[in-house]
Amino acid sequence: MEVGFIGLGIMGSRQAANLRRAGHELTVFNRTRATAESWATEHGARVAGSPREVAEHCDVVISMVVDGDQVEQMLLAEHEGAVSGAREGALFIDMTTIAPSQTRAIGARLAERGVAFLDAPVTGSAPKAADGTLTIMAGGEEADFERARPLLEAMGALVLHVGPLGQGEMIKLINNAVAAVNCAVLAQALVVGRATGVDLEKLMEVMGAGAGGSTMLALKGRPMLDHDYAPLFKLAHMLKDVRLCLEEGQAAGVPFPAAAAARELYTAGLGRELADLDFAAVLEVVEGLAGTRL
Amino acid sequence: MEVGFIGLGIMGSRQAANLRRAGHELTVFNRTRATAESWATEHGARVAGSPREVAEHCDVVISMVVDGDQVEQMLLAEHEGAVSGAREGALFIDMTTIAPSQTRAIGARLAERGVAFLDAPVTGSAPKAADGTLTIMAGGEEADFERARPLLEAMGALVLHVGPLGQGEMIKLINNAVAAVNCAVLAQALVVGRATGVDLEKLMEVMGAGAGGSTMLALKGRPMLDHDYAPLFKLAHMLKDVRLCLEEGQAAGVPFPAAAAARELYTAGLGRELADLDFAAVLEVVEGLAGTRL
Amino acid sequence: MEVGFIGLGIMGSRQAANLRRAGHELTVFNRTRATAESWATEHGARVAGSPREVAEHCDVVISMVVDGDQVEQMLLAEHEGAVSGAREGALFIDMTTIAPSQTRAIGARLAERGVAFLDAPVTGSAPKAADGTLTIMAGGEEADFERARPLLEAMGALVLHVGPLGQGEMIKLINNAVAAVNCAVLAQALVVGRATGVDLEKLMEVMGAGAGGSTMLALKGRPMLDHDYAPLFKLAHMLKDVRLCLEEGQAAGVPFPAAAAARELYTAGLGRELADLDFAAVLEVVEGLAGTRL
Amino acid sequence: MEVGFIGLGIMGSRQAANLRRAGHELTVFNRTRATAESWATEHGARVAGSPREVAEHCDVVISMVVDGDQVEQMLLAEHEGAVSGAREGALFIDMTTIAPSQTRAIGARLAERGVAFLDAPVTGSAPKAADGTLTIMAGGEEADFERARPLLEAMGALVLHVGPLGQGEMIKLINNAVAAVNCAVLAQALVVGRATGVDLEKLMEVMGAGAGGSTMLALKGRPMLDHDYAPLFKLAHMLKDVRLCLEEGQAAGVPFPAAAAARELYTAGLGRELADLDFAAVLEVVEGLAGTRL
Repeated sequence: MEVGFIGLGIMGSRQAANLRRAGHELTVFNRTRATAESWATEHGARVAGSPREVAEHCDVVISMVVDGDQVEQMLLAEHEGAVSGAREGALFIDMTTIAPSQTRAIGARLAERGVAFLDAPVTGSAPKAADGTLTIMAGGEEADFERARPLLEAMGALVLHVGPLGQGEMIKLINNAVAAVNCAVLAQALVVGRATGVDLEKLMEVMGAGAGGSTMLALKGRPMLDHDYAPLFKLAHMLKDVRLCLEEGQAAGVPFPAAAAARELYTAGLGRELADLDFAAVLEVVEGLAGTRL
Repeated sequence: MEVGFIGLGIMGSRQAANLRRAGHELTVFNRTRATAESWATEHGARVAGSPREVAEHCDVVISMVVDGDQVEQMLLAEHEGAVSGAREGALFIDMTTIAPSQTRAIGARLAERGVAFLDAPVTGSAPKAADGTLTIMAGGEEADFERARPLLEAMGALVLHVGPLGQGEMIKLINNAVAAVNCAVLAQALVVGRATGVDLEKLMEVMGAGAGGSTMLALKGRPMLDHDYAPLFKLAHMLKDVRLCLEEGQAAGVPFPAAAAARELYTAGLGRELADLDFAAVLEVVEGLAGTRL
Repeated sequence: MEVGFIGLGIMGSRQAANLRRAGHELTVFNRTRATAESWATEHGARVAGSPREVAEHCDVVISMVVDGDQVEQMLLAEHEGAVSGAREGALFIDMTTIAPSQTRAIGARLAERGVAFLDAPVTGSAPKAADGTLTIMAGGEEADFERARPLLEAMGALVLHVGPLGQGEMIKLINNAVAAVNCAVLAQALVVGRATGVDLEKLMEVMGAGAGGSTMLALKGRPMLDHDYAPLFKLAHMLKDVRLCLEEGQAAGVPFPAAAAARELYTAGLGRELADLDFAAVLEVVEGLAGTRL
Repeated sequence: MEVGFIGLGIMGSRQAANLRRAGHELTVFNRTRATAESWATEHGARVAGSPREVAEHCDVVISMVVDGDQVEQMLLAEHEGAVSGAREGALFIDMTTIAPSQTRAIGARLAERGVAFLDAPVTGSAPKAADGTLTIMAGGEEADFERARPLLEAMGALVLHVGPLGQGEMIKLINNAVAAVNCAVLAQALVVGRATGVDLEKLMEVMGAGAGGSTMLALKGRPMLDHDYAPLFKLAHMLKDVRLCLEEGQAAGVPFPAAAAARELYTAGLGRELADLDFAAVLEVVEGLAGTRL
């Protein structure tokens, strides 16, 4: 299949490489053209001058950019957007994390032009993108998903069709909001442990073996003890996801108080200039609240 | 070793059976004597008429009762309490979940009488008690722990000395508070998912594979979807543990806002007469808040 | 002074009437022209066909519309917006409640065209608009405020210059967020009182005389006891203000946890279809959480 | 009427003086006898050697001590407690702030001995105690309240019979919990205002004139701006009252999430060694959370 790929950043470059490895011909576009040229030299691909040009050459176009405004620009911009070059029966797949409501709005505009659309955000960071072991949750029509499946499976280990358009994004947001809460709770538990004289290594061992266990404990417990916030997922990005989740909740009239409380802690992280550190740095906020250090 | 065991309830009877299996001679006491007689007939043990009598026969006395007031009564009551019969060099081990501050107060009174003391609460429910695969976290002197270790290892798979007296209890309380929060967050995530049109099976699959994963998701996700609250750990007991954790936190001047928020949800569970159901029934409260059902 | 007035809704029509009473000549615009015609017949005013036409006739143009998007359209729309007709040295005053960041963005675009700008949102509802007893908090340049003062004092009893552009809006949002919290706390206190057997009349009397007193108690206590939610300020509008306040807080990296918690309660009000009732209807959400009724 | 008064501390000494001024004969007791002697010399009163001796001389005995345990000791202690000397038809009135459940327990034990009992806690600090302008909310039998009324009216400006025994205490706790929340919200609003560039004087003026107004704003706004925490009501005492309110709520199965969140902020105040400052010092905790200063 000839596949278009828009956005060759940290994630996109690794995902596109896995599509090449699976034998697909690629036409790529990146805002900084030099990045695209260099990638194409290494992996073999046609470099397009615009998203429109990508779409002119490919039946399927994948986007992996920064936010919803970029997705809109890449896919819908008047002259150079991919939709302007879309072939008959084209399928666009957006893998960026954006608001479900924006996904649906983009899908509606693509549908007017006869273009099918899937949202297929991912979880897992750069190493999993490189290994092709991402979790990919796709929203959209079943038939479109089946058409996309071989491509998605080249990039992910767990590939799920989760429902109509936008539901991939929504599941991703809820998953991240739960992670944000569990991480904030972990930070609080460690601070409570320290203040009550608990051996934190033992606390982590007991929680890990028991009811208090979580992916966040496994991933962030040790870094918190070390105050090591080398960014795997930046605090500012986690905050963005929690905020989007709450916005969708508000639109649906459904409360998510634990996420709302967590949002305020991560917001205080922004104020402390922790935005570009790993979101485990929420520990600093909890320490500030308690007036103590681990 | 000749071992005394006070409290042959759901947990205690199974733990004591594992001590028998490991070859220890037992003297047992239970408030309802018939229970003790029947247990002794099945497993082989001397039945004592009082905690004092237990202590007269054994160098090590284990208690596994309901709450701190019962522990005090069993160990410290003026004429019939175990301390009244304690041998020279005796070691008492309390495995009940009680407040760390009460543990330390009991320990201080035992120390005046020359009795060593460990707190060794457990995590894991009846099946793990039966299998001898509990997690046991013990607080107290290192030497006392080493003396107790063979007994504890007959009852638990993970047996840890976690620090001074009371720290076993404190770690248990923090672990349960984190579980209470993670469970409440899970309930909220499911309700948000339903209200935003998400496929909850897919949401659970994605969270389980990713950042939102937790022991609570693994244990309580399915029962929540089914509104199945057959009690593995009663909501009232979970609420008690969260409350004790917050009390210790207040005494230490350290906040635990996530646990405080969870406490109010479980409190509302009491008001809804969910006290004797599994604590996963906190979902009912979240549904009441949202005004929807899963 | 010849004054333009855009937006003759419930508030605007009353405010403009007070400007007339104070002797100012008015040119008015309303999206539904018939409303403007009828108002002009009653009060005496020139009716303009567009915001541009308003600006062509007046040195000062006041807007009182629904939200930030309408303000942008009225003031900045390419051909018909007020800015297209602005006289040299014109001053625009927006009295709508919108996001401070949007106010500043609008102000920047007006400044490029040489138009001065104040934000001057109000507190107080229709009766106070009619009486000319609103509280008006204005942000912008001191000189512009002094120029506007006679107009603002015709509409308000307390007229304050609170700081640079946008700060009128920010103070209004914080004030409303505090009100939203105090109202939600009141609802909780009443529900706690009922559940603990308290005489709620006596509770309100004691709080009113003491430390628990608040404007919200004075305004919303009785309606809550009566479950009377005739809208003085709609729950949906209060929720919008709390949300805007939190958004500004997030942008500034400052947490507001009490408002975040309140936001979730009002959000649950949306889900319960209370959007168009008075925000005192948050009591229904608190009752749903508690599983009881007052 | 001959009246007994137990506890001549900051509040009690002023209240008792107002009883003297109203013409009542007093028999007083204080744990530190010198305090009682000195008070009696100044105001004229019989000094008793024990609570029992107080009760032997008076039909009505008022207690105003520190906490529930002291009330129990003063009224119920085996040989020297007031109950041991109670006359036939005696009425005891406790004005200390204690848990309603403890009030009811004390009342039950007094009833067994034929002694009537009212709880009549107060709001208002030393100056209002001196002026006789306290707010007094009494729980108990109507007839007992009517008997006590002339005494209570000598000490308070607003004297209310609020319901059965314990309800005076419960109303007081709810009132204080609401105050604790409103005060914490005020602190948050000021910190948000500072971080978003707002003029805090103007913010306070607008809130005071509008929806965000509260007794807490009037009493604590200025001290917060000045970081002046001279204690009118100590943070530790406010925390105690919030905690008691939440305990009663939990017993009744009713949630009070706003108070629970506030409790954690005041708890962090303990950890910051603010216990003996005014509870307005919760601002320090909010500043610590936000990582900023007003």
